[in-house]
Amino acid sequence: MTGLGNYTLDEITIGQTASYSKQVEARDIQLFAAVSGDVNPVHLDPDFAANTPFKRCIAHGMLSGAIISAAIAMKLPGPGTIYLNQSMRFRLPVYPGDTVTVHLEVEAINARRGFITLDCRVLNQDGKAVVTGTAEVMAPNEKILIESPQLPQVTVGSPSHSA
Amino acid sequence: MTGLGNYTLDEITIGQTASYSKQVEARDIQLFAAVSGDVNPVHLDPDFAANTPFKRCIAHGMLSGAIISAAIAMKLPGPGTIYLNQSMRFRLPVYPGDTVTVHLEVEAINARRGFITLDCRVLNQDGKAVVTGTAEVMAPNEKILIESPQLPQVTVGSPSHSA
Repeated sequence: MTGLGNYTLDEITIGQTASYSKQVEARDIQLFAAVSGDVNPVHLDPDFAANTPFKRCIAHGMLSGAIISAAIAMKLPGPGTIYLNQSMRFRLPVYPGDTVTVHLEVEAINARRGFITLDCRVLNQDGKAVVTGTAEVMAPNEKILIESPQLPQVTVGSPSHSA
Repeated sequence: MTGLGNYTLDEITIGQTASYSKQVEARDIQLFAAVSGDVNPVHLDPDFAANTPFKRCIAHGMLSGAIISAAIAMKLPGPGTIYLNQSMRFRLPVYPGDTVTVHLEVEAINARRGFITLDCRVLNQDGKAVVTGTAEVMAPNEKILIESPQLPQVTVGSPSHSA
């Protein structure tokens, strides 16, 4: 079994780290546009993007936020975590094809309330910080170890495919 | 033409507001799982979710973040905005079928730097705040009015559909 597990409050220590990587493909940007409703052409239209300061299409900044939230929910503390607060500073654009890695580090533990503060740094494949921030979460009460669920099957198609 | 337009710095005033609504369907939660990689069963598996404090599946908290970012990018200030910072406090869960509305209000303008501070409140159909926060953005320099792009065509299918 490929497991999906978590860390309960008593298993978490200051300085504990976890990381989570994802390659951001043009397909992910199309999916993020569909799910958010943000269809700005700087994300979707290479000809439009060529005339912006970015020169080519860029990912939505909040796509990095989605990947931070996945790192917290999948890695540290993992399933059963309750998200309380997140701050993010968007520092550099993410381009299609970039691989981003979220680095989480436990900065503070409020044992009485069960709250954990996590430093969040999203680096690209060149080691440059694209997003930095801080998360506050409630750590899981119960140990969870489940079989890793499958990613939902999703197909992205242009309208011409159905013509 | 159904236009997608923006507000440049000189057109923005303190107290200016905009809103943006989206019904969050189970399909959106599956898409968000696919794009983020967060396949926690509390979002995807009704049987698992029944045994959590939420009783049924809930949307990823950061899906509301995605909808905030869309409100900023599509409505106020609109296309050409550069996202600098976002804070979010997750207050209540969002369930499949809920309609969330992002309310943006201009709180501060730094005319010298071109920075705008936006109060962000995401309310559900009962008027309860599910997420609150603050965004800092750089307002667009140039007026943009373009034809509204289409949402990418996305199909969510279970593996059995292709069998």
